[in-house]
Amino acid sequence: MSLRNGMWVCVLLLLQVAASAAAKVRHYKWEVEYMYASPDCIENVVMGINGQFPGPTIRAQVGDTVVVALTNKLSTEGVVIHWHGIRQKGTPWADGTASISQCAINPGETFNYSFQVDKAGTYFYHGHYGMQRSAGLYGSLIVELEDGKRERFHYDGEINLVLSDWWHQSSHHQELALSSKPFRWIGEPQSLLINGRGQFNCSMAGGMINSTLPKCRFRGNEQCAPQIQHVLPNKTYRLRIASSTALASLNLAIQNHKMVVVEADGNYVTPFTVEDIDIYSGESYSVLLTTDQDPSKNYWIAIGVRGRKPFTPQALTILNYHPTSASRLPSSPPPVSPLWNDYQRSQSFAQQLYALMGSPSPPATFHRRLVLLNTQNLINGFTKWAINNVSLTLPTTPYLGSIKYKLQNAFDTRSPPDNFPAEYDVMKPPANPTSVTGSGVYMFEMNQVVDVILQNANVLNASSSEIHPWHLHGHDFWVLGYGQGKFDPKRDEEKLNLKNPPMKNTAVIFPYGWTALRFVADNPGVWAFHCHIEPHLHMGMGVIFAEGVDQVGHIPPEAITCGLTGKMLVTTNTTVH
Amino acid sequence: MSLRNGMWVCVLLLLQVAASAAAKVRHYKWEVEYMYASPDCIENVVMGINGQFPGPTIRAQVGDTVVVALTNKLSTEGVVIHWHGIRQKGTPWADGTASISQCAINPGETFNYSFQVDKAGTYFYHGHYGMQRSAGLYGSLIVELEDGKRERFHYDGEINLVLSDWWHQSSHHQELALSSKPFRWIGEPQSLLINGRGQFNCSMAGGMINSTLPKCRFRGNEQCAPQIQHVLPNKTYRLRIASSTALASLNLAIQNHKMVVVEADGNYVTPFTVEDIDIYSGESYSVLLTTDQDPSKNYWIAIGVRGRKPFTPQALTILNYHPTSASRLPSSPPPVSPLWNDYQRSQSFAQQLYALMGSPSPPATFHRRLVLLNTQNLINGFTKWAINNVSLTLPTTPYLGSIKYKLQNAFDTRSPPDNFPAEYDVMKPPANPTSVTGSGVYMFEMNQVVDVILQNANVLNASSSEIHPWHLHGHDFWVLGYGQGKFDPKRDEEKLNLKNPPMKNTAVIFPYGWTALRFVADNPGVWAFHCHIEPHLHMGMGVIFAEGVDQVGHIPPEAITCGLTGKMLVTTNTTVH
Repeated sequence: MSLRNGMWVCVLLLLQVAASAAAKVRHYKWEVEYMYASPDCIENVVMGINGQFPGPTIRAQVGDTVVVALTNKLSTEGVVIHWHGIRQKGTPWADGTASISQCAINPGETFNYSFQVDKAGTYFYHGHYGMQRSAGLYGSLIVELEDGKRERFHYDGEINLVLSDWWHQSSHHQELALSSKPFRWIGEPQSLLINGRGQFNCSMAGGMINSTLPKCRFRGNEQCAPQIQHVLPNKTYRLRIASSTALASLNLAIQNHKMVVVEADGNYVTPFTVEDIDIYSGESYSVLLTTDQDPSKNYWIAIGVRGRKPFTPQALTILNYHPTSASRLPSSPPPVSPLWNDYQRSQSFAQQLYALMGSPSPPATFHRRLVLLNTQNLINGFTKWAINNVSLTLPTTPYLGSIKYKLQNAFDTRSPPDNFPAEYDVMKPPANPTSVTGSGVYMFEMNQVVDVILQNANVLNASSSEIHPWHLHGHDFWVLGYGQGKFDPKRDEEKLNLKNPPMKNTAVIFPYGWTALRFVADNPGVWAFHCHIEPHLHMGMGVIFAEGVDQVGHIPPEAITCGLTGKMLVTTNTTVH
Repeated sequence: MSLRNGMWVCVLLLLQVAASAAAKVRHYKWEVEYMYASPDCIENVVMGINGQFPGPTIRAQVGDTVVVALTNKLSTEGVVIHWHGIRQKGTPWADGTASISQCAINPGETFNYSFQVDKAGTYFYHGHYGMQRSAGLYGSLIVELEDGKRERFHYDGEINLVLSDWWHQSSHHQELALSSKPFRWIGEPQSLLINGRGQFNCSMAGGMINSTLPKCRFRGNEQCAPQIQHVLPNKTYRLRIASSTALASLNLAIQNHKMVVVEADGNYVTPFTVEDIDIYSGESYSVLLTTDQDPSKNYWIAIGVRGRKPFTPQALTILNYHPTSASRLPSSPPPVSPLWNDYQRSQSFAQQLYALMGSPSPPATFHRRLVLLNTQNLINGFTKWAINNVSLTLPTTPYLGSIKYKLQNAFDTRSPPDNFPAEYDVMKPPANPTSVTGSGVYMFEMNQVVDVILQNANVLNASSSEIHPWHLHGHDFWVLGYGQGKFDPKRDEEKLNLKNPPMKNTAVIFPYGWTALRFVADNPGVWAFHCHIEPHLHMGMGVIFAEGVDQVGHIPPEAITCGLTGKMLVTTNTTVH
């Protein structure tokens, strides 16, 4: 070996060492527990982590392994946490979905979530058992680029916002209401929250001036006072925004400032400038904000409800320009949210999203297409949501184990239908609102290219159709297009964007509309695909996808020691009797 | 064999056949679920069974096997049911105590409770996980004599009353309040309930006339209207009364009627006549009532609070004499409960209990004596109850499995102390209120005769000591005596009643007093012994007894597939990986 060659080997070795040194294992010890909090100035009980609400922020770098030792300190309830947007390649048991990827963690027990974060972006985490997300179990998960790698856009600082909605009724009572006959709707949220802070029904909350209401509390040490976002003039900030709402579709605007959208659901998009952004439950965005306004003032950042008739005041946070005092309130009222039912506007926002050049393109054709009709139904007098006439009821035994070990009777072995009857009129209430409950699975062959056409329809009441943001676990999908009415392959196929569609993990269907998605079933595991509105999922609005489960590695026994997999693991034991 | 002998054999065989035919297996299929109910005319959420609150009544006969297939239909919570007063001989895994005799039953799963009822009497059942009893999980369990056997007293009919107390705050919120720093006391119950019915704060509830309150609802179909107990004149009725209260000590009286006490906690007592009875949480009584009053009237049966300053109105039920209309209200107000703090009266009631002649006598001497000091303490700023300075925290792994399989690290292996320092002044607040939490076990040798002196003391605040009804699982004990101040063997030993002490499973300690119990550790298993006030148990007021666990038969794996026993059962499995 010449000296010169030897040096090259050396350099390569050093590079490898540097790379492996950079990828860290980040350990977290979390305890989930109920705690008192006043998210909207009204004292209530939230599900917190290590005494914090929202939970602690995770920050990691691409290639890192995140290890969360999650201890359940609740008294009688199980718990899991889903890492929303993380694909869990090779670790499908860490997806944190009760009944799907794992058994709920029992009180007193600790489960180790260990997974690699392989893509930079803005993510979040939340409970995925019953309606524990509504109870307050959520927080931020941010994946930065590796050391030395530069982002595709410049920014000087970050502001991190987790958006949510809040009810005064406990999530247990909400679950009961939604499962009752007759059905009791939980109503619109009492408050919206930004980083866990909002204000219930006060005067001067979002310009809703009403002198009979108590005054909003904008100063002082109240838990519910708007957070102050400190900025320097003439800099660029990256706002990371994730929506963990249970129900509300939101619009976010910053007084006097435009925003440049650069990332959606952990994927780069072609930058575009907007006055405000729509954000649906399950979505995340990064937007760039330039602090080019009068630095002697402060400015509202406001979120308001879209897509449902709003009965909830805006939530606020304050953009505080240095050296202006943080306690100085903005001089004019917060930006007014766009009309809740201006769906045209919502669609045009959604249609501005394109993948950044160089992003992966979708395969040109699909192997299998599911057309999933979203309907509201009645089953034995219970109000449910159904997909192709099947309302999802989760089994007791997590699918991941029961499919891998080919257990009998763990779930409905018949797959739900790939399509719905051609004569179904999506513009009218269901002619026959009866549907069935089921726990069947859509099974894909490994690396199949799957198209999903999400087809919206009229609900039980005439002249009404609702927004549903659908979230896919374990994958990103390409959003090929949106349309109105019933999807018609002959007419609509050619309009699909196969060139530069954005990749996302959550996409909305608009009232009476359809949304076309494509993804590659390349991640061995069992994955939920569901409406991210938590009450809707509770009412059955989801389906289960599975692929390559035979290729899934050794599932940690603690993930499946319940139900029939628990029995299986125990009865094969012969030494202790 | 002569004809005569042959006939005798025949008769004996027939008798055996008759006996075995008489002992039945009684199957129940129960589903535990939250439901809406208005126990005190205020709509709220209760934990019901098969859509009923209180749960269905179990009626069985001595020798029967009761099998309850209990399915957990809750969304995210585990559940267990304890069969209060049933000794579970040979079936310690069916005692229904989470963390002690079994793992909580997970949502969606079914656990089969199967146990023999071997002693006639008035019992009840209730949740024994977190504070699910407070949530409404309870009902009646009645064991009758075998066919053809006659009771030791005559009666013509039965009236069955389950007593409870009710808070408007959910049991989850109560748990959080009690576990918080600073401590938040849950306060007195909003209502008392008889068979699940009471009335919140209304006028003419127990003579508490207050014109600003809404009128009580005594008629109509309200869920909360007092139950009507239909009786015929000049008959004798057996009132079976069980108290499942979370907190309240009660006094029950029947207008114009005396009662003859004949049974306490499933054991016969020497009959004695009273105007009213005291009944503490965890106790049950049978009293005989003779309908010898004016049959043209109806009469109140009333319960009121004793032992704590009452802020809760009485609960009522109506004794309706045939042929008087059931809707006719009694002509005078309900009986007034005795003064809450007339402890002299309470003690004299307790001291009237003697075993019926022919009942088993206690062994003359004991092998081991525990003197258990009951104190209120502060641990790191948390308010707790402690026994000999140890506040009970239940482990994640049920003791029954971890002791049987000799697992390491499942609980504190050091036993808690048998006594407390001689200098402790029970009349004053603890000089040093610090104590420790622990999960240690008092281990007894099989058939040891154990004495327990329950020693009450002053709480954290000066000049205050509270009533605690202590309940023992798996055994009855003899109540040898009560006394005031600190138990002094030299002085008090000779006053103990070893001749005809009543057998019970629950006995009270009076403020600043002591209570002496004796039992034989003859039931292989692990058994809770604790204050039956649910908030007090939640705050650590209990101890764990164990005996003969090596003699316990095959524990059904589903009872212990959690925690370390779950791990053990799974890791000894080698076939599935």
